[in-house]
Amino acid sequence: MTIPKRTVIYVSDGTGITAETLGHGLLSQFEGIEFRPMRFPFIETEDKARECLARINEVSKREGAHPIVILTQTNQQLSTILHQADAFFIDMFDSFIAPLEQELDCRYSRAVGRSHSQANPEYNARIAAVNFALAHDDGVSDADLKSADIILVGVSRSGKTPTSLYLSLQFSLKAANYPLIPEDFERDHMPPRLLPFRDKMYGLTIAPDQLQRIRNERRPNSKYSSLDNCRYEVAAAERLMRREGIKWFDTTSRSIEELAVQLMQELNLER
Amino acid sequence: MTIPKRTVIYVSDGTGITAETLGHGLLSQFEGIEFRPMRFPFIETEDKARECLARINEVSKREGAHPIVILTQTNQQLSTILHQADAFFIDMFDSFIAPLEQELDCRYSRAVGRSHSQANPEYNARIAAVNFALAHDDGVSDADLKSADIILVGVSRSGKTPTSLYLSLQFSLKAANYPLIPEDFERDHMPPRLLPFRDKMYGLTIAPDQLQRIRNERRPNSKYSSLDNCRYEVAAAERLMRREGIKWFDTTSRSIEELAVQLMQELNLER
Repeated sequence: MTIPKRTVIYVSDGTGITAETLGHGLLSQFEGIEFRPMRFPFIETEDKARECLARINEVSKREGAHPIVILTQTNQQLSTILHQADAFFIDMFDSFIAPLEQELDCRYSRAVGRSHSQANPEYNARIAAVNFALAHDDGVSDADLKSADIILVGVSRSGKTPTSLYLSLQFSLKAANYPLIPEDFERDHMPPRLLPFRDKMYGLTIAPDQLQRIRNERRPNSKYSSLDNCRYEVAAAERLMRREGIKWFDTTSRSIEELAVQLMQELNLER
Repeated sequence: MTIPKRTVIYVSDGTGITAETLGHGLLSQFEGIEFRPMRFPFIETEDKARECLARINEVSKREGAHPIVILTQTNQQLSTILHQADAFFIDMFDSFIAPLEQELDCRYSRAVGRSHSQANPEYNARIAAVNFALAHDDGVSDADLKSADIILVGVSRSGKTPTSLYLSLQFSLKAANYPLIPEDFERDHMPPRLLPFRDKMYGLTIAPDQLQRIRNERRPNSKYSSLDNCRYEVAAAERLMRREGIKWFDTTSRSIEELAVQLMQELNLER
């Protein structure tokens, strides 16, 4: 039995990232179909729109099935050209902009790529948050922990770094992270320099067998990656956090997106 | 004159990140209105849906205007509860799922939060790409440049690191970055270890006065941040890249999203 395939074409006068996020959210709900993406970002002139139209029609003809075209096109004239294609359209602006104009009693500004440009006022705060996350990754610096929005703690490879980066890039939050290391477990105390910031600390923990798999990719057959050591470190870290009243999430089956949003809820963080 | 305000409420049975991306893309098109976000992620039980309904109605009553509710709710029953709210709805699934079911001749699986969970097959590749970007940030390692999808080069603070991280987190691409430093300019040669990888190198450059502003925040009144030095470094870096036939983008007014998508186009990169 062959898996049915369908081409998905993201078309935008901006980066196409909004279209792609929307498309991914929708199409991941349809199981048993293999979606093959094509991307046409920055379609911002009539020439480019006509070329894109021709490419969509080629796909449609070659495959004998309508490609799914997911469109975020602010220019009405270009949108009209694209809609001539032999395709199935999901048009974010067509579907929602007219009702929104009515509800908000405000005309749509038709500004290209507004949501992913430097002109967005949040942009500088995001880049500052990314730089903060890098400067405060893995305990490399505690220079400015007091201005952190959140400080993640946990054993090495428990997911602190990707989660910190995601919090900064997606939500403009200043996320530091600090490893709990064998030295802390021997002393049986949290790193003292963290204690003033207890109200913004949150722990990450992980199932020892998954930790072993992750560490083993990094340093195969080491003490660091042995199951015994992973069990010891996870138990010791949880004991420390429990004693200090620091709550934690288990990252074993949570994605960084789920962790980020749950952490924001727990700590009442907003951008 | 006061700026009109409107509350935007993101409701989802998953993280709400898809709803928020969609909402941001739409609402950033309406100028002169201040949108205040509220978030209700993980609304996955009837109790939570009823509580959320009550909260939406509170906002509506207090503000005397319909909040804009942007909804990605896969559970039809919970969606029906939420739709009782006194609000203006943008419902991604309502609008697009039924026509997609017909077009794809496939029933929708109603799986919660599919697009942002670890169950997503792309997830491990993304995390590996993030780890790669960190391990190959700022030239700290050239251990595995041959498996990089892209190697960004440019002067310090030209935007290499945030762009690399974005490429990895959003598009699962292995992005290394390598700084061009005064030593390279004195020698007047690209770092020799990079030359085998010329086909995947791309340069980033920046206007000297913007570079000065950025560097000055980091090391005020240093030679590093002086306008003369910024001019010298940018000119020297562009000369090196021109001589080696390495193309570049100017990051002065491009966002990391725009850079990422344009780089993928230039290097024909797909996930």
